[in-house]
Amino acid sequence: MSITVNRDRAVLIVSGGMDSCVLSHYYAAAGFNLHLLSFDYGQKHVKELTYAEKYISDLRQRYSSGPKPLEIKHTVIELPISRLLTDSDSALINQGVKMPHGHYTDDSMKATVVPYRNPNMLLQAATVAWNEKAPIVAYAAHQGDYAQYPDCREVFVNAFDAMLSAAMNTTEIHVVSPFMHFTKAQIARLGASLNVPFELTWSCYEGGNEGHGDTHCGACGTCVERYESFKNAGVVDPTKYAEDPDKYLHIAGKQEG
Amino acid sequence: MSITVNRDRAVLIVSGGMDSCVLSHYYAAAGFNLHLLSFDYGQKHVKELTYAEKYISDLRQRYSSGPKPLEIKHTVIELPISRLLTDSDSALINQGVKMPHGHYTDDSMKATVVPYRNPNMLLQAATVAWNEKAPIVAYAAHQGDYAQYPDCREVFVNAFDAMLSAAMNTTEIHVVSPFMHFTKAQIARLGASLNVPFELTWSCYEGGNEGHGDTHCGACGTCVERYESFKNAGVVDPTKYAEDPDKYLHIAGKQEG
Repeated sequence: MSITVNRDRAVLIVSGGMDSCVLSHYYAAAGFNLHLLSFDYGQKHVKELTYAEKYISDLRQRYSSGPKPLEIKHTVIELPISRLLTDSDSALINQGVKMPHGHYTDDSMKATVVPYRNPNMLLQAATVAWNEKAPIVAYAAHQGDYAQYPDCREVFVNAFDAMLSAAMNTTEIHVVSPFMHFTKAQIARLGASLNVPFELTWSCYEGGNEGHGDTHCGACGTCVERYESFKNAGVVDPTKYAEDPDKYLHIAGKQEG
Repeated sequence: MSITVNRDRAVLIVSGGMDSCVLSHYYAAAGFNLHLLSFDYGQKHVKELTYAEKYISDLRQRYSSGPKPLEIKHTVIELPISRLLTDSDSALINQGVKMPHGHYTDDSMKATVVPYRNPNMLLQAATVAWNEKAPIVAYAAHQGDYAQYPDCREVFVNAFDAMLSAAMNTTEIHVVSPFMHFTKAQIARLGASLNVPFELTWSCYEGGNEGHGDTHCGACGTCVERYESFKNAGVVDPTKYAEDPDKYLHIAGKQEG
C-alpha cells in the first residue's frame, strides 16, 4: 500500500516514568508534532497515567509558543490484555501476586513481565501512526530492560519492524527505540540536559497501593532502578522514597552511567 | 521465558466465512481442543459473527461425543481498531465509503484493506494462546488473498512468527496459515470432504445491509470469490445470491481449483 508520510510527526508510547518523559522531550526538542499514547492495561500502578498527564501538560505548555509551536496530543488507550491473560502470574496485573522487591536485575523480577505487552502497545501505536501518516513509532526501551524483558530487546524491535513493513507492504512507518543502548543513567543525564521535570514522573510498580500515597515505595525493582540511575548519572533525584532504595543495590556498579 | 505447551490445543481466528469454517473442521478433525476467536472490529458485515456462532455450534455438537470429545470454545473480541483509524478510507469499516463490486482481484478491492487488521487479530490470539499454553495460532489466509492483502502473505506470517518468538524469547508458540498455498477452490474441496456445512457460513462484505437480508449480494469481491470457488471446485454452492455473480467473472480461469 502506498502512503505519503508527514516527516514532522511521531507517535510515542509513554508511561508515567522518567524514560518516557525524556523520550517525549527528546522528540519535542527536535521539533516533532507528537501523539503520545499511554495504556491502561490493568496495571496495578495505574497511578502512573496521572503522572503522564502531568509531565505532558508541562511539555505542551513549553512548546505552545515560540517560532514553531508543536501540536502535542495525548490519548489513553484501554488495552484488554489483562482480560485475555486470565491465568497470568504477572505481578504487574494480577492482584493475587505480590510485587517482588529488590534489584531490577534479580531473577525474581521476571514476575513483572506481562506477556506480549509491548507488541500489543506497539501495534496500537502503529495503527495510529498509519492513521496520521506518522513515519515514526517510538518507545523508551533501554539497556536496563534487557535482562528481564525480551520485548525491550533490539532483536524484538527489529522483528516487529519487519512484521510491520510486511503487514502493509510498505517501509514508510518504522518502530524505533532510540535509547536501546543507553543505560537508564544515560537517559537521566540526557533528561537533565533537556530540563526534564523528573518530579512529574512516576516509576514505582506498587503504584502507591501499599499506603505510600504519592511516595515511591523504594523497594520494588523500578524504584531501585530509578534511584540508581540518578545516583550513577550524578543528577539530583527529586523522588521521595518510603524505604531507602540504597540497601537493594547489592549488585550496584554493574549498571554505570 | 519458559512455557510448557499443551500439544492438543490450538487457537484459531475465525470469521463467519467458509475458509474459517473449513479451518475449524480441519483442526477438529485432527483432534485439537479449540479456542475460536472472532473479532468485532467495526466491520459493516458484522452479521458474519452470527454465522460463526451457527457453524461453531454445529461443530461443537459433532465433536461432543465419541471416544475423544473435544472442548470447543468461542469468544468474540472487540477490537478497537476502527476507533484508532478515524481517517481510514477502508470500505470495510467506513460507512461513508461504498463497497466495491466486481472481481476480488480487481484493483478497486484495495478499498477493503483495513490497516494492520490481521496483526491486531493475531496478537490477541497469541495472547490467548500464551494464556492457555496452546502452541498453535492459526488463521485461514490463502492464495486468493495474495493480490490485495499484504497481511495474508507468507512473508508477513513468517515475520509475525519471528516477532512473536522474539517478544517472549520462546519458540513454543507459532502462527501458521495452513491454507496459505491453497486456492479458495481447494479449500472448498477440502471442506466438502470434511462435510463442512457451507450453508452456515457468510462471506458477503455488504453484510445484508443493502436490503438483501440473509441473501448474499452476489456483487462484492467476496461474493464473487465464493461463487467462483464452488464452481471451480465442482462443489454444490448452497448460497442464495441477490445478483448473479457469474457476470463478474471476467477474469475467471485465473483461479482454478
